[in-house]
Amino acid sequence: MIPEKMMPLKACRLGIDTHHEPNIYLRSDSHVCKSEGFEALSRVTVNTEHKQIIATLNMVTSDLVAEGHIGFSEAAWDMLDMRYEDAVWLSHPKPVLSISYVRAKVYNQRLNQEQMQAIINDIVEGRYAEVHLAAFITACGDDKLDNEEITFLTRAMINAGSRIDWKLPLVVDKHCVGGLPGNRTTPIVVPILAAAGLTIPKTSSRAITSPAGTADTMETLTEVSLTLEQMRRVVEQEGGCLAWGGSVRLSPADDLLIQVERALDIDSEGQLIASVLSKKAAAGATHVLIDIPVGPTAKVRSQDAAERLAASFVTVAKNLGLELKILFTDGSQPVGRGIGPALEAHDILAVLQNHPEAPDDLRQRSALLAGAMLELAGKSKPGEGEKHALELIKNGAAWSKFKAIAMAQGGLKSPPVAPYRYELLAQRTGKVEAVDNRLLAKVAKLAGAPADPAAGVEIHVKLGDTISQDSALLTVHAENSGELNYAVEFLLEHPELIRVNEV
Amino acid sequence: MIPEKMMPLKACRLGIDTHHEPNIYLRSDSHVCKSEGFEALSRVTVNTEHKQIIATLNMVTSDLVAEGHIGFSEAAWDMLDMRYEDAVWLSHPKPVLSISYVRAKVYNQRLNQEQMQAIINDIVEGRYAEVHLAAFITACGDDKLDNEEITFLTRAMINAGSRIDWKLPLVVDKHCVGGLPGNRTTPIVVPILAAAGLTIPKTSSRAITSPAGTADTMETLTEVSLTLEQMRRVVEQEGGCLAWGGSVRLSPADDLLIQVERALDIDSEGQLIASVLSKKAAAGATHVLIDIPVGPTAKVRSQDAAERLAASFVTVAKNLGLELKILFTDGSQPVGRGIGPALEAHDILAVLQNHPEAPDDLRQRSALLAGAMLELAGKSKPGEGEKHALELIKNGAAWSKFKAIAMAQGGLKSPPVAPYRYELLAQRTGKVEAVDNRLLAKVAKLAGAPADPAAGVEIHVKLGDTISQDSALLTVHAENSGELNYAVEFLLEHPELIRVNEV
Repeated sequence: MIPEKMMPLKACRLGIDTHHEPNIYLRSDSHVCKSEGFEALSRVTVNTEHKQIIATLNMVTSDLVAEGHIGFSEAAWDMLDMRYEDAVWLSHPKPVLSISYVRAKVYNQRLNQEQMQAIINDIVEGRYAEVHLAAFITACGDDKLDNEEITFLTRAMINAGSRIDWKLPLVVDKHCVGGLPGNRTTPIVVPILAAAGLTIPKTSSRAITSPAGTADTMETLTEVSLTLEQMRRVVEQEGGCLAWGGSVRLSPADDLLIQVERALDIDSEGQLIASVLSKKAAAGATHVLIDIPVGPTAKVRSQDAAERLAASFVTVAKNLGLELKILFTDGSQPVGRGIGPALEAHDILAVLQNHPEAPDDLRQRSALLAGAMLELAGKSKPGEGEKHALELIKNGAAWSKFKAIAMAQGGLKSPPVAPYRYELLAQRTGKVEAVDNRLLAKVAKLAGAPADPAAGVEIHVKLGDTISQDSALLTVHAENSGELNYAVEFLLEHPELIRVNEV
Repeated sequence: MIPEKMMPLKACRLGIDTHHEPNIYLRSDSHVCKSEGFEALSRVTVNTEHKQIIATLNMVTSDLVAEGHIGFSEAAWDMLDMRYEDAVWLSHPKPVLSISYVRAKVYNQRLNQEQMQAIINDIVEGRYAEVHLAAFITACGDDKLDNEEITFLTRAMINAGSRIDWKLPLVVDKHCVGGLPGNRTTPIVVPILAAAGLTIPKTSSRAITSPAGTADTMETLTEVSLTLEQMRRVVEQEGGCLAWGGSVRLSPADDLLIQVERALDIDSEGQLIASVLSKKAAAGATHVLIDIPVGPTAKVRSQDAAERLAASFVTVAKNLGLELKILFTDGSQPVGRGIGPALEAHDILAVLQNHPEAPDDLRQRSALLAGAMLELAGKSKPGEGEKHALELIKNGAAWSKFKAIAMAQGGLKSPPVAPYRYELLAQRTGKVEAVDNRLLAKVAKLAGAPADPAAGVEIHVKLGDTISQDSALLTVHAENSGELNYAVEFLLEHPELIRVNEV
């Protein structure tokens, strides 16, 4: 593992945070640059006596790094468990064979199971630079993977991480395809199903291109960064959990791909299905419910597109041996009032606590989804699931279970409230005819969501509402004035965001 | 341009070389992080009183950067012409609209002239991160651009840079599609054509995925980093030049795309044609000769593929108003003896100086290409171009012109010679049946070419040669022992590189 006959370099920590990307900093006049022919931005293998990683090389032309030393970014330091002046050797990385499969995919060739596995393994082991991840995502974009390739990709992603075996005949899970701001049903569905006696080890993602993912929202209410062992304990105790998938690393390849998908704002169908089903299968689920909201400005824009996506989901799930049910839901407007982690958390608490002003659409939709699963899992008679679910909210069973899960995960918190606000007033009296989900999501993101948990948008109207001039349409929330200004500037440039027509 | 009401940061230079990518280093506890919500690896706009660029943000959690200061990488420092403690303001970059066109291309939509222009302009202005460049290259990979889109891309690349108008009816240029190690005809063809009275303002690229580009080779013989003004002066004086295209920035988008193509090892047909023809058109050429070597291990592997590529070249050239002639040449083995910048330069000098041991295949091929252009440009009668070209080598006119061009570019240099060598001997007596161009190129690259100009491979045999056991097949040249070892290790693992069969 360690190149022979070479003098080691001494490690030092520079305190540079490059997020998850390991970087090292080497003097351009160091002997190893000359003997190995390294250049700025070369990919190099960093070897210690115990471990090795591939990192990106930055050349230092100043005295930032002392002679005989090598600087580490925070990610590189952590990945190698370094201590000050530990010995380090650099070498050229072996060529990454699986990149030729990515290239083959660019040339429209089909990939087989072994090739997909090789790509995913190399990604998980950190052998892909960001440009390689971007090329893989792009080459698989749109409909460039067929159902068999999506199955291969999903299996490869499952194999590359941990997989939980609950030793139970029935373990349930749900997923929403997204694109609908505020559609945060999971934190309501999970306690309903767990209260009904089902096992639902739910892991959720952070936002990819949206203002909040379920993990972002749940993080304002409790601890979500659980280890696999902690998650297992919570589920064994309470029947369900609401954890962040990234920390349990059930599909570590997906966590890396999502970073680049976010930068590219590309979220392909094949990657979407593989991402969802690999996490469900790795979490040990046997029965899965998929919610596909359909609407002109939702992620899935037409019934046609929804049915094509559903058909792929069904085929891939069957190949993997998963029971799958799909619900098409209304995607014409946001669900609930809040858009952004904490604002959505406030809606969730209102529904679970049977608050008189709780958003009814969020309650009804959660009951619809939970009901479908109660029927699929044989806990309700056909046609009675939704009523059963509503009953579990009404009688406080869901709220008790939610609190118990939060306590088991580390305690229940109050979601934060943003100090900076802007209220958009109606320019005229009329009827709300259309709401643009994409523009709304954009405003919430510009306001700082999801990185700033209290940031986002609170929407005060629903399609069909009759409103009077100067009544509040929405409120932008931000944690600082800079981001509030960006969001408001964009909002005022897009009056089509909420269309009000004269009656 | 400068965000109002914000305290400026003070610039400091950290001496970190991140190649062409601008990076900045900001304390994670600085006020601007909090007020603007910046995170590690955020893309941020860096504003001075005079200029602005987009850079990647690295967070500093140590005292590397003093309070109130902001650290700069070398590239960022140079791009903004900074001086110590100059005032700097950071802001969020405006959304890059053209990335939605890249996304549209991923979804198999055709792009029009305006969309291509928007993409190329944003690339040239530094608005694309590496992942965006990778996505664009991948989305255009294989045959995903039709001839009209390639025309749009080519025009966009021409428009994004400088274009020279020579005010002459006839300006010639040539290009080889590459993939054939050692095929360095350009430095011989240019002085032949200039000696015949033609105008040939030749710019060449550095290697993308090969061990040497013409610019790398020429750099061992003279100065190639000319400004547009210097290039114009050389051509007006001598009729021709041999400059590096990157320094004259005739197609600056191409220079940026090539960096990422190299990392991905993807070199698509559309990008190839756009890259070549944009540079020719920007250099003011009216008549262009394209050399396509065809062979089982060349870049173009079959006559079929060659003809498809040629057809696209012809259509796009016609759309741009360029006269184009295509020659298909033998791509079954390397040309000349040297592979690598300096080793190729030695071959070129031998041909131009009529050395008795000069590689005849390189001389013949240069004369074939120069002859075709002499005929196309009306300087030779049909069928007599090749003879005319050979005569201009033999009578010393080409060598005189080469020296004159080199002197005008800054002086004639002797190419370097590598201190470390390894000689591969034949294991048996027999006949040379096959040579793998790709593996040969790989050995030369592992030996250090093109970054180490003296590194590469010298090949001592040709297809069909009868050789005896223990005679030298090839010599690996390297500038240091580390790289020599990598190259030799790879060479010994691939005995199929030169196939010798018993007679």
